[in-house]
Amino acid sequence: MAWLDLPRGYWNPVSETMPRERLRERQFDKLKVQLEHAYAGSRFWRERMDAAGCPPDTIRSLADFSERFPILTREEIIAAEAVDPPYGTLPSVDPRLAVRHHQTSGTSGAQPVRTFDTARDWAWAADMWATGAYAMGVRPGDTALVAFGYGLFIGFWGLQYGLEKIGCRVIPTGSFDSEKRVRLLIEQQCQVLACTPTYALRLALTAEEMGVDLAQSAVKVVIASGEPRPEATKHKIEAAFGAFCGDTAGMTEAATIFMFECAEEPGGCHVIETDYLEEVIDPETLQPCDYGQRGVRLMTSLGREGIQVFRYWSNDLVTKRPHSDCGCGRTWDLYEGGIQGRHDDMRKIRGVWFMPSMVEDVVRKFPEIDEFQCQLVNIEALDTLVVQIEPKPAVREKDYEPLRQRFAAEVKRQLSLTPRVELAAVGTLPRFEMKAKRFQDLTAAPEAVKN
Amino acid sequence: MAWLDLPRGYWNPVSETMPRERLRERQFDKLKVQLEHAYAGSRFWRERMDAAGCPPDTIRSLADFSERFPILTREEIIAAEAVDPPYGTLPSVDPRLAVRHHQTSGTSGAQPVRTFDTARDWAWAADMWATGAYAMGVRPGDTALVAFGYGLFIGFWGLQYGLEKIGCRVIPTGSFDSEKRVRLLIEQQCQVLACTPTYALRLALTAEEMGVDLAQSAVKVVIASGEPRPEATKHKIEAAFGAFCGDTAGMTEAATIFMFECAEEPGGCHVIETDYLEEVIDPETLQPCDYGQRGVRLMTSLGREGIQVFRYWSNDLVTKRPHSDCGCGRTWDLYEGGIQGRHDDMRKIRGVWFMPSMVEDVVRKFPEIDEFQCQLVNIEALDTLVVQIEPKPAVREKDYEPLRQRFAAEVKRQLSLTPRVELAAVGTLPRFEMKAKRFQDLTAAPEAVKN
Repeated sequence: MAWLDLPRGYWNPVSETMPRERLRERQFDKLKVQLEHAYAGSRFWRERMDAAGCPPDTIRSLADFSERFPILTREEIIAAEAVDPPYGTLPSVDPRLAVRHHQTSGTSGAQPVRTFDTARDWAWAADMWATGAYAMGVRPGDTALVAFGYGLFIGFWGLQYGLEKIGCRVIPTGSFDSEKRVRLLIEQQCQVLACTPTYALRLALTAEEMGVDLAQSAVKVVIASGEPRPEATKHKIEAAFGAFCGDTAGMTEAATIFMFECAEEPGGCHVIETDYLEEVIDPETLQPCDYGQRGVRLMTSLGREGIQVFRYWSNDLVTKRPHSDCGCGRTWDLYEGGIQGRHDDMRKIRGVWFMPSMVEDVVRKFPEIDEFQCQLVNIEALDTLVVQIEPKPAVREKDYEPLRQRFAAEVKRQLSLTPRVELAAVGTLPRFEMKAKRFQDLTAAPEAVKN
Repeated sequence: MAWLDLPRGYWNPVSETMPRERLRERQFDKLKVQLEHAYAGSRFWRERMDAAGCPPDTIRSLADFSERFPILTREEIIAAEAVDPPYGTLPSVDPRLAVRHHQTSGTSGAQPVRTFDTARDWAWAADMWATGAYAMGVRPGDTALVAFGYGLFIGFWGLQYGLEKIGCRVIPTGSFDSEKRVRLLIEQQCQVLACTPTYALRLALTAEEMGVDLAQSAVKVVIASGEPRPEATKHKIEAAFGAFCGDTAGMTEAATIFMFECAEEPGGCHVIETDYLEEVIDPETLQPCDYGQRGVRLMTSLGREGIQVFRYWSNDLVTKRPHSDCGCGRTWDLYEGGIQGRHDDMRKIRGVWFMPSMVEDVVRKFPEIDEFQCQLVNIEALDTLVVQIEPKPAVREKDYEPLRQRFAAEVKRQLSLTPRVELAAVGTLPRFEMKAKRFQDLTAAPEAVKN
């Protein structure tokens, strides 16, 4: 079956290479259908559109929609769900049509966002994942190991169904520990690994301890999702697995991914513009950003029937770049460096903008460092960045202090901030299998500290 | 959408109620296609059929097949897979067409059986599960909580896809503990729970400790699979959940279930005869058993294209009964009491036939007993059944000895065997989330004891 090996660049060739004029027309056609569907089926959306004076038949263009349609916040979703749990007034169809239930972890003390998918939604969600995985080089006949807990987190569920749709042999490893996963990865000659960036690094470390060289394995693509992922982390994963590490991101509120990094490695991710209308706005002025300007992304999903979102404040910080910056032929614009951080994690420290992902970017350049944590602390009336670093077991104690100093100097050089760097004993910092939590702001109000 | 509530008895009305003559014709037509497919695609099967003098075109009838076609053992599958792992010479199609990989646990020291499913196989596997779940009363619009680890075990994976196919809202709980699962079951008002019988009892116990009365929950069906399940266990589950507890069983070697208990509760399980040709034979003489005679089931799968099995020695002990013993209208014959035990677990103790499931049947009648273990031990040259029972924490110590005596008397009464019964301290016996292991034969050869 040599035809399985034939190269083919796109999962949906026509929609991925459509001229931008046509793309905009298609977005507007889909938007109108979505608005009408929401207005007819969802109490929440009907009341909201009526109150804002923008029922579906009054929306004249994409620009008109962006100007007049109200922004949706996470708090509003939570409030609408609380009216009649689990889904409240939001759904546009009877939730009994759902084939799946998912929710966010709600670990930070906040209420989880709950969601369902109809059979149609779920097929669409898998198609979005197939679009992204295919662009990363995943092909029919590949074998993929999926490493996550298979609980209510939606992300890797959609991925699994997407890989099946492509025609991959999927190996689910819900209840497995890292050693067992490394062994399966080798035994089953997997070409694809799917997990969070944090967990990919953990698997690499486990393999090292087992004396297994993953760079010699069959793995060709690591699909990393679930967390922002700085460049240095990507390179570290690529070195460990001898593979391309593709970035992607989705949201529970959208059921699936909205962007992916193609194998051309354009330095960012393509937005799936046929299925999402993405706006980038200045978080202060709420005015649209141009290419090259960092702002918060507002998401409008064009592909879902069960629970819909229009102009959803994602809290993700992004910078849009034109599609022409990538040579893959897709006409879909890019988010430079993927998700650069979270707007509510962004802090001005002594006049300098800071995001936690910046610290990770430095850490990953130090092979001697195993884990880290960072905090923003008020010390003698000054906001101070405190970073704890945990050396690998192999590092000798006499090298601890020089490591600490070199790391502090590098943070200062890259972030223009003088951190307080502390050493943590081997094995003492928390480890993460799913979404890592490595930043705490202790300068905020006491209520927030509890979260 | 009141139509969702309309009763309808069968998932596949025509095939479930087909006259038996037509059913036999259909089985033979399907068998011929399966044999030809295996002969054309599988080295293992081609060589085997040629060696036995029964290539596809020589098989003249179902009876002819049963008389001449060789029996397949687990050891032969393992040997065929070892030739070129993971699937060896068995597959009838290129394994690159697989969408899933699964394997047995291999925990007992034996090699695991590995298997894959093509997209077509997987759709068929889900349809078998849908057939069973629908017969138990699961309907579109129901919400189902699936409680297992989502590793390589195939069973509940097929169930999940089958429930989606029916149109249920599925809630996967791979990484959850029992408390979290109980909370979700209540919060999401689940009508359906799917897990092993052992785990259903564990959830019931957890709920009791949490002060939650599951009998007041929305649960109407507990789909219990993965283990033989004596009647007393069924009744205990039904009392705890205030629900119907439906039995079913499958095998990794068949990808999905081959029998299910319908809501009429016929005292056993219907065989999915359109998709399986099941023979029951005497394990000593290998001659076919009549209705009412206990024997070992030989399985021929009529629905799978990737890896096929013909006349597979399942090791399951069953007794076939005619379909007319059930009032549901299905024309599919029954296995009385489902799987009654495993042939290699069956022992003659002092002239009396014994199966471990018989002990479980007694245990479940004692609400004071939490867990148990049983062993066959040679004491003073006599084979003796030793049963350890662990009382619930609520049982007072002064009641321990009377409990021990009552239990011993009941075992003697039901099994005609005099056991040695020992009390185990609270919390000391092993607990099981998946397939329980509660029997050890210490009279066997040392090699076997290690397993």
